[in-house]
Amino acid sequence: MKRTKITELLSAREGREQVLVKGWVRTRRDAKDFSFLEINDGSCLANIQAIVDTSAQGYDGVKEIGTGASVAVQGALVASPGKGQAWEVKATAVELIGAADQETFPLQKKRHSDEFLRAIAHLRPRTNKFGAMFRIRSELALAIHRYFQERGFFYLHTPIITGSDCEGAGEMLRVTALDPGKPLGPEGVKNDFFGKDAFLTVSGQLSAEPFALALGDVYTFGPTFRAEPSDTARHAAEFWMVEPEMAFATLQDNMDLAEDILKYCIRAVIERRGSDLELFAKWVDTTLMATLERLVSEPFERIPYREAVEILRKAPRSFEYEAAFGKDIQTEHERYLAEEHFKKPVIVYDYPKDIKAFYMRQNDDGETVGAMDVLVPRIGEIVGGSAREERLYRLEARIAEMGLAAEHYQWYLDTRRFGTAPHAGFGLGFERLVMLATGATNIRDVIAFPRTYKHLEF
Amino acid sequence: MKRTKITELLSAREGREQVLVKGWVRTRRDAKDFSFLEINDGSCLANIQAIVDTSAQGYDGVKEIGTGASVAVQGALVASPGKGQAWEVKATAVELIGAADQETFPLQKKRHSDEFLRAIAHLRPRTNKFGAMFRIRSELALAIHRYFQERGFFYLHTPIITGSDCEGAGEMLRVTALDPGKPLGPEGVKNDFFGKDAFLTVSGQLSAEPFALALGDVYTFGPTFRAEPSDTARHAAEFWMVEPEMAFATLQDNMDLAEDILKYCIRAVIERRGSDLELFAKWVDTTLMATLERLVSEPFERIPYREAVEILRKAPRSFEYEAAFGKDIQTEHERYLAEEHFKKPVIVYDYPKDIKAFYMRQNDDGETVGAMDVLVPRIGEIVGGSAREERLYRLEARIAEMGLAAEHYQWYLDTRRFGTAPHAGFGLGFERLVMLATGATNIRDVIAFPRTYKHLEF
Repeated sequence: MKRTKITELLSAREGREQVLVKGWVRTRRDAKDFSFLEINDGSCLANIQAIVDTSAQGYDGVKEIGTGASVAVQGALVASPGKGQAWEVKATAVELIGAADQETFPLQKKRHSDEFLRAIAHLRPRTNKFGAMFRIRSELALAIHRYFQERGFFYLHTPIITGSDCEGAGEMLRVTALDPGKPLGPEGVKNDFFGKDAFLTVSGQLSAEPFALALGDVYTFGPTFRAEPSDTARHAAEFWMVEPEMAFATLQDNMDLAEDILKYCIRAVIERRGSDLELFAKWVDTTLMATLERLVSEPFERIPYREAVEILRKAPRSFEYEAAFGKDIQTEHERYLAEEHFKKPVIVYDYPKDIKAFYMRQNDDGETVGAMDVLVPRIGEIVGGSAREERLYRLEARIAEMGLAAEHYQWYLDTRRFGTAPHAGFGLGFERLVMLATGATNIRDVIAFPRTYKHLEF
Repeated sequence: MKRTKITELLSAREGREQVLVKGWVRTRRDAKDFSFLEINDGSCLANIQAIVDTSAQGYDGVKEIGTGASVAVQGALVASPGKGQAWEVKATAVELIGAADQETFPLQKKRHSDEFLRAIAHLRPRTNKFGAMFRIRSELALAIHRYFQERGFFYLHTPIITGSDCEGAGEMLRVTALDPGKPLGPEGVKNDFFGKDAFLTVSGQLSAEPFALALGDVYTFGPTFRAEPSDTARHAAEFWMVEPEMAFATLQDNMDLAEDILKYCIRAVIERRGSDLELFAKWVDTTLMATLERLVSEPFERIPYREAVEILRKAPRSFEYEAAFGKDIQTEHERYLAEEHFKKPVIVYDYPKDIKAFYMRQNDDGETVGAMDVLVPRIGEIVGGSAREERLYRLEARIAEMGLAAEHYQWYLDTRRFGTAPHAGFGLGFERLVMLATGATNIRDVIAFPRTYKHLEF
């Protein structure tokens, strides 16, 4: 007999004579002639209750089944007389598959701190909270694919290992087959696996652009890396990024897309993972549902960078960093704008060119570029993007002006040499999206096995 | 006015008074008072033809629009009198967006060799063949997500950077923030970014298992790496892998899943990207459609390894490597079984334990493990998987027997200590799936920007 998942049993329209449930016991309660087992199989947040009485095969061993054990219960799916659940299983047979020693099993029935659970990241998905977290993460990932698929975007896998540093940011991890500390021969990295310097990508954008300028609309969704030597709740060395790139698109189209996809993803979680979301609304952030409902129902604010700086300078509070034209907008500024000033997502656009990357489209004012960032409450920047400079002479001039090595960009410039076209795209930080949707405040809690500065466990 | 994609125009049910097409010119043909432009926008294989006559705004410049230029054409969508196309655009205005110099643009209208196109991987998606290739690749990726989503699997992102080597294979690329060749201090790699040895993953399996043993059915779909210093048509240093992992599942379930998902994916491409597929059936592999039709319509052959070896030993031909019990099945053997002997996909199962990984479930014969590989014509192995050893004592014994460092696996063994359960999964090589679907024989031609031994361009 095949097992039926609990999510299916709990949404049954009528009882069934024979079902087989397999899962992990959350609790056992005993009465004189019967025991209740609360079983969870990870298919949904809710458990199903099995009632095992003396008539059930295996009843004799039921008191050896503790929290965390895996079991198989066969029986009838019947309406539950208890409240809070529509269905329960009246067992005809119960089998212990894998025991969990009650002295050593770390997940006894009680609330555990996030910090404790991070230390057992391999077991935390068996808790209600992290089960819900990773179901929501999965739902968001699928929402992204569905969104783009419905709109004719093609999914592209851009390289993880790269010889170039897209943003000139520098904080890259090196990939090598050489022994660390062993002296390089006279040929240097020529003896390495790739025969040259190799790094982990910080963005797939430069690789995605040629594909947008061939297939029209494309997107990437893959891991990206940053070797930032800081151990904060917001930074991981390895994280996933969604990067759409659209041919024949403007900064305006880019903002529309960013707003639309964020709304689409949050709506998908509300509609499809409502029970999981409730857990976070109840235990993690009581303002969560209000924030999300507002996000999906109201238009995002859109303001030029210049105006954002004005607002920040007039803000009735002080910041660690002063806001001024030509300076980066800091996380504290981002959060002030989204959380306090506008109380909703804000798109800031037209940034000074000197604080942005070489590939961004130069505005006619000679001072700003067609960049845009989406700032959301609690998180700050969740999307960063731009119209791309499609004019060859402008792009070449900017590369020279910034002192970049033009010879590394010849293939990239080819896309401007031959049939160039306006295009635009952005990067959406996927972990930040999961944090936005769940109210989680630490990036380590939205990643299965997080990789951060000086941390590489499991 | 917003542009309409060519795929939508070509499937229109009726004409339209005003449409805007944007794309790249494949060819221009001139007559006395008008020109034809064949325009492709990457949304599908087919071009749309625009007829630009003297009445069209911009007609004067039309002869400057060459192959590879990007254009915007506005006009009416009208039934085409020409054959081979239902619709064409009668232009009222044509605009050159980005020129392509006819002397230097490398993609003039003619067939180019795959080798030539690999050297311009940033431009090759503008050819018919590679446009089709990457649309098919995208379709297959989405088919995978759709398949699992419809069956209640959760999508999991397992780490790319890892401290452990899942398969003990050794051929791993190192990740470091240290300068190559610079002597290590007395603390060694403790000063490195992660404070320990770090590598690029070869498989997400060990990370996926704890999630299967919590959420039930999960899958990963992400990049994996192998530092194999060989430059063949089948190996890339970076490739994508799909790895489902199912709780409460047997080797039989595993084989069923592998067969089912392969059929599902190929069917999806046949149904959804038929025109793109036709290109490959016509120009790349004339037996392609027959191979694919057979694959989706007939059950795969399933034989124990022992039987496979027998067949190979009796084969009426010689191999470079002799087949013998206890030896690996080589690519030449795999292809013989699938292409010549059975003429369809074959699942080989129950391999000798000594040629397989420590985590595979030990059979009662003491000699074999519950491993299974799916072999397909032209490719050889496309799927490799197993039932996992869920019995703690057996797994510990095997780790000791193979001389692996037990202390590295304690977290992994926890999943067997607490509520262990039978489970199974496999890895499906995504590039091999794209090669199977298209008939491509070189892995470099199914990856946007391939990374191979001594090659790291773009």
